[in-house]
Amino acid sequence: MTGYAAPVQDMRFALEEVAGLAELAGLPGWDQAEPDLIASVLEEAGKLARDVIAPINRSGDIEGARLENGIVRMPRGFREAYAQFIAGGWNGLPFAEDIGGQNLPWAVSCAVQEIWQAANLSFGQYPLLTQGAIEALSRHGSPEQKKLYLSKMVAGVWNGTMNLTEPQAGTDLGALRTRAVRADGHYRITGQKIFITNGDTDLTENTIHLVLARLPDAPAGVKGISLFVVPKLMVEADGRMGSRNDLRVVSLEHKLGIRASPTCVMSYGDNGGAVGTLVGEEGRGLEYMFTMMNNARLSVGIQGVAMGERAYQQARAYARSRVQSRELGSRDVAPAAIIRHPDVRRMLMTMKAQTEASRALAYYAASALDRAKALPDAAGRARAQATADLLIPVVKAWSTDLGFEIASTGVQIHGGMGFIEETGAAQHLRDARITMIYEGTSGIQANDLLGRKLMRDKGVAAAGAIAQFRTTADRLATGPGDDLATIRRHLIAGIDTLERATAWLIQTWGDDVRRASAGATPYLRMMGIVAGGWVMAISALAATERLKRRNGDAAFLEAKLITARFYAEHILSQANALLTPIMEGGGTVMALDEDQF
Amino acid sequence: MTGYAAPVQDMRFALEEVAGLAELAGLPGWDQAEPDLIASVLEEAGKLARDVIAPINRSGDIEGARLENGIVRMPRGFREAYAQFIAGGWNGLPFAEDIGGQNLPWAVSCAVQEIWQAANLSFGQYPLLTQGAIEALSRHGSPEQKKLYLSKMVAGVWNGTMNLTEPQAGTDLGALRTRAVRADGHYRITGQKIFITNGDTDLTENTIHLVLARLPDAPAGVKGISLFVVPKLMVEADGRMGSRNDLRVVSLEHKLGIRASPTCVMSYGDNGGAVGTLVGEEGRGLEYMFTMMNNARLSVGIQGVAMGERAYQQARAYARSRVQSRELGSRDVAPAAIIRHPDVRRMLMTMKAQTEASRALAYYAASALDRAKALPDAAGRARAQATADLLIPVVKAWSTDLGFEIASTGVQIHGGMGFIEETGAAQHLRDARITMIYEGTSGIQANDLLGRKLMRDKGVAAAGAIAQFRTTADRLATGPGDDLATIRRHLIAGIDTLERATAWLIQTWGDDVRRASAGATPYLRMMGIVAGGWVMAISALAATERLKRRNGDAAFLEAKLITARFYAEHILSQANALLTPIMEGGGTVMALDEDQF
Repeated sequence: MTGYAAPVQDMRFALEEVAGLAELAGLPGWDQAEPDLIASVLEEAGKLARDVIAPINRSGDIEGARLENGIVRMPRGFREAYAQFIAGGWNGLPFAEDIGGQNLPWAVSCAVQEIWQAANLSFGQYPLLTQGAIEALSRHGSPEQKKLYLSKMVAGVWNGTMNLTEPQAGTDLGALRTRAVRADGHYRITGQKIFITNGDTDLTENTIHLVLARLPDAPAGVKGISLFVVPKLMVEADGRMGSRNDLRVVSLEHKLGIRASPTCVMSYGDNGGAVGTLVGEEGRGLEYMFTMMNNARLSVGIQGVAMGERAYQQARAYARSRVQSRELGSRDVAPAAIIRHPDVRRMLMTMKAQTEASRALAYYAASALDRAKALPDAAGRARAQATADLLIPVVKAWSTDLGFEIASTGVQIHGGMGFIEETGAAQHLRDARITMIYEGTSGIQANDLLGRKLMRDKGVAAAGAIAQFRTTADRLATGPGDDLATIRRHLIAGIDTLERATAWLIQTWGDDVRRASAGATPYLRMMGIVAGGWVMAISALAATERLKRRNGDAAFLEAKLITARFYAEHILSQANALLTPIMEGGGTVMALDEDQF
Repeated sequence: MTGYAAPVQDMRFALEEVAGLAELAGLPGWDQAEPDLIASVLEEAGKLARDVIAPINRSGDIEGARLENGIVRMPRGFREAYAQFIAGGWNGLPFAEDIGGQNLPWAVSCAVQEIWQAANLSFGQYPLLTQGAIEALSRHGSPEQKKLYLSKMVAGVWNGTMNLTEPQAGTDLGALRTRAVRADGHYRITGQKIFITNGDTDLTENTIHLVLARLPDAPAGVKGISLFVVPKLMVEADGRMGSRNDLRVVSLEHKLGIRASPTCVMSYGDNGGAVGTLVGEEGRGLEYMFTMMNNARLSVGIQGVAMGERAYQQARAYARSRVQSRELGSRDVAPAAIIRHPDVRRMLMTMKAQTEASRALAYYAASALDRAKALPDAAGRARAQATADLLIPVVKAWSTDLGFEIASTGVQIHGGMGFIEETGAAQHLRDARITMIYEGTSGIQANDLLGRKLMRDKGVAAAGAIAQFRTTADRLATGPGDDLATIRRHLIAGIDTLERATAWLIQTWGDDVRRASAGATPYLRMMGIVAGGWVMAISALAATERLKRRNGDAAFLEAKLITARFYAEHILSQANALLTPIMEGGGTVMALDEDQF
């Protein structure tokens, strides 16, 4: 199994040239996000990942998380690694300083998250889940709740969870049945939750569960759902740990991947009801959850980027070292490293281009969230929020779909060795598979993009994004050489395609919602491909500019330019073909009777 | 985990309408292949698969094959299932009657193979590997070898293996080092082999290894390789079992999938050399192996089809039974089965269309092998052989790539449940992954298609296939309704694209072999998509004709027509986009220095 080295050079490039790190650092309160400081943050995170967190990825997969007498035991090495992680203050990167955070922009936090996720996807679930719970409490919790929980959670001494899913309530949370009953200023929670990541752990002193439940007199459906904070150990007003709450882990799932991550079936209230306190107001639980959705989905998109990077590094190392067959078109009959064989090279280039494009797009989406929060003018903030809302389902689904595809290509480059677990490539494939599912499947993201993000404003945000893409295409016209011209040609074709599909979907949605909806997934993929082409075009322009100014590592910058062109020719060029499934193919999707399948 | 029911109706349709079963049954010696008889063969195989072989698929995966004191122990139930399998005479389906076979056409045998592979891919390795060894011995063995081994292997009482790979010699078999030394009319074999499927087993009385090895005075490279038959237990001239040969299983690999299939590291000659006899002539071992390559690769292609079908059945059952969220565009607010949601429906239709197309193409390729053997005229046989040679790398790579994609879509339809091993969808994904690798990776198939099949005759066979495709497109013009017209439009576009890419690749190969070769994989995928469109068009025509004659199950035939149209709109429509990576994108594939990755 190959180790992991954070791709700091490419991360910096994406942050600086695509996400606009210098601009973010110029916004109020973010002067610590100055690019050189961030570079050393990434270097430091990379060291911890390389030396401590990545080395327990394979052993964690083999050993798995275990449930012993109701307590989740993490695999060997996780306690020590987690202790180092929180001692370094890494858990609090994006949070406000008054609760112990580092107050860095979300874009920076995403880059650092990518490092943890790439090093060890099971380990990375801790900061990811705790971060979601922190946000929920920060935004919607009472002063008492914030005081009781936030600083410990930001420090990572306590971890957080999200208790949404029940057997009959997955995508459709309106169907959930967990009950909450008012009792003396708090609530008693009873019910079963499934798919609860880190529902218990021996890494932290306490686990703070956020639980969706329904009050007895609540209306049916989503409006009847409230959000509760339910700690594993009760916390006294003075911060001391109190008694054990009435909740337990029933079992752990045996999963395809992220086997070191405990996915728990949780039972609340076996003995009269777990004690919880209400977050915000009754009946607004789902609304509160949705306010965190953007960050959570973006974080999972980052996991997709991370798995792509990890699989790419593993395959690259193998392709450089595995010697097999002579080189095509060479007089040398000696066997060559397989990186010299065109089809292997094509696979590696595809992995590299897809990873870099999805990284740049994810960081850009994160920076849009930052701008939506921190830009001085309200109109600018609103525009940035609209951009983030539009792009985040794309980042979530497209990056994770790609992460899995890349991991599969990584297995393929290893040939037979890829199928052997010891090699490590197969673990990346298994681990990556979950990212397309949790936090809303790729199909749910596509429905969100189409049904909410596109239809809510009848394409205004999409038109704004398309206009941005065209501005970049215009800039490409002024560049030297034929690389930028080639990229420009494919980018314009992609933008035209996206514009056509967008207009058609908006038109058709009103007439035949099922036909339009049948095109949701190809449309999301198209937008991912074209937006990926856009950020690669920005990267190519920046690389050209830096090369002209002799500013930076020429080999890296030339590679960036070539990779952007490769992306245009091999990936962006596929966008146009998706028009047919969308605009023509909707009829056959729903044409069969169910018993004709 | 959902069970498996052989899709006999679709298998029969593909055999009769695409592979031309009636025509095959009319060829000398194949009157037992009459369609109604074959239908009952498929039904019987389906029962054994459903009742006996499929039920041990999941338990076999959990338990795995184990190595105990040098003996491979198969998981529980495999001995009983295998005993029933060989008692039914299933192992000998395609072989001559004089060695105990059933003498059925290869096309029929492939359909039956699909059933075993879909039921249990680990189990299916037994007939697959033994079949390869039988063919090698049938074609190239001495009369003594045939007498000693064949009838037991055809009966399945003994199993066969293929010992090709060594750590340094995977794709490049010329690099193999296993030695064979002449000794008293036989040979002593010494060396290590890896990735040996069924290298030992407790299912059979003896294991007959076919081993590639090099004589001391042999030339370097592939011309120095000879083929030997090396039994686990020596066989006396009178057929009695003799002493244990000097070979052993060193270890079993821990794999991503097919965990009930023992993948062995084999050691030959730890104690002076395993006794083997030469197959055919010295130095022709690789040539003999290549004569079986078509059948072996086609069989693995069938495994791809099988995994697609299995995953489709599993996902279909879940989509029908899982109730979640209300139906889009319906007034009914009650939650609906997810098969009613357009994006789930799109996924199911994609799985169905891809599986049916890859099945029909694989059966057609098998029938080409049958025609190449049995047509009365030499020119017809040669044409059929050229078609088989051209299509088999496509079937191997495209069907297995699709099998894995379909298995992944199957996981996706299950949402979070898909990631839980208990559900069974994840096993199909893990199992399917190997089919893209063994018997020549998908990339190797693409190189074979381009470098051998296309370049050897400068596109003559491809032109023949394209002409066949056009004939079908012409026939579509005469059909009623707009389904056939739509299919025709997409088929013609696909054929035009394929013709352009073919001409460009043949032209470019001579000028810049690396640039041409960089397009091998997209070219293979293009040919798979277009050839799949062709067999779906044949199917649509046949369905239309049967509907007109009121001949058959109307719901099935209408579904076939709609599925063919879906294929045209959603899959065939993607072929054209692959022109750009091939014709434009070759330059960037090889443009980076190795240290720029």
